[in-house]
Amino acid sequence: MPAQVSRAHVAFGAAVRVRRQELGFTQESLAAEAGLHRNYVGAIERGEQNIALNNILRISRVLQMPAAALIAEAERESG
Amino acid sequence: MPAQVSRAHVAFGAAVRVRRQELGFTQESLAAEAGLHRNYVGAIERGEQNIALNNILRISRVLQMPAAALIAEAERESG
Repeated sequence: MPAQVSRAHVAFGAAVRVRRQELGFTQESLAAEAGLHRNYVGAIERGEQNIALNNILRISRVLQMPAAALIAEAERESG
Repeated sequence: MPAQVSRAHVAFGAAVRVRRQELGFTQESLAAEAGLHRNYVGAIERGEQNIALNNILRISRVLQMPAAALIAEAERESG
């Protein structure tokens, strides 16, 4: 199993998961809407990917949520 | 010259540069504080790097500014 990148990444992924489920997306449907692979979305949600800015923005658009709000969740957990 | 990744990346980099200059950092001193290479910081500021979450958080800490605020700048420019 890949390692989690950091607590901040885990918190970011958890925020993605919560919002995805609120909207009734599966990992597959979020991935399809965002133009990503479903395995990649799963890894993001587990904090196992050091997601880059382009994909942060893609996911936030599909989730109809500011990327800044997702990042704020990550920051709460970062040293 | 490398291409800019997107308008959002350019806006993110511009926000980094503004804040860096406010604090009196050079690209070199920001890079040193953040544990990054100065060329990488220059490329970030020009929007030529698709910066990942770990480095977004590193830079924001050195700049004493929430990463969410830097991302908000990027989002203003993203479609």
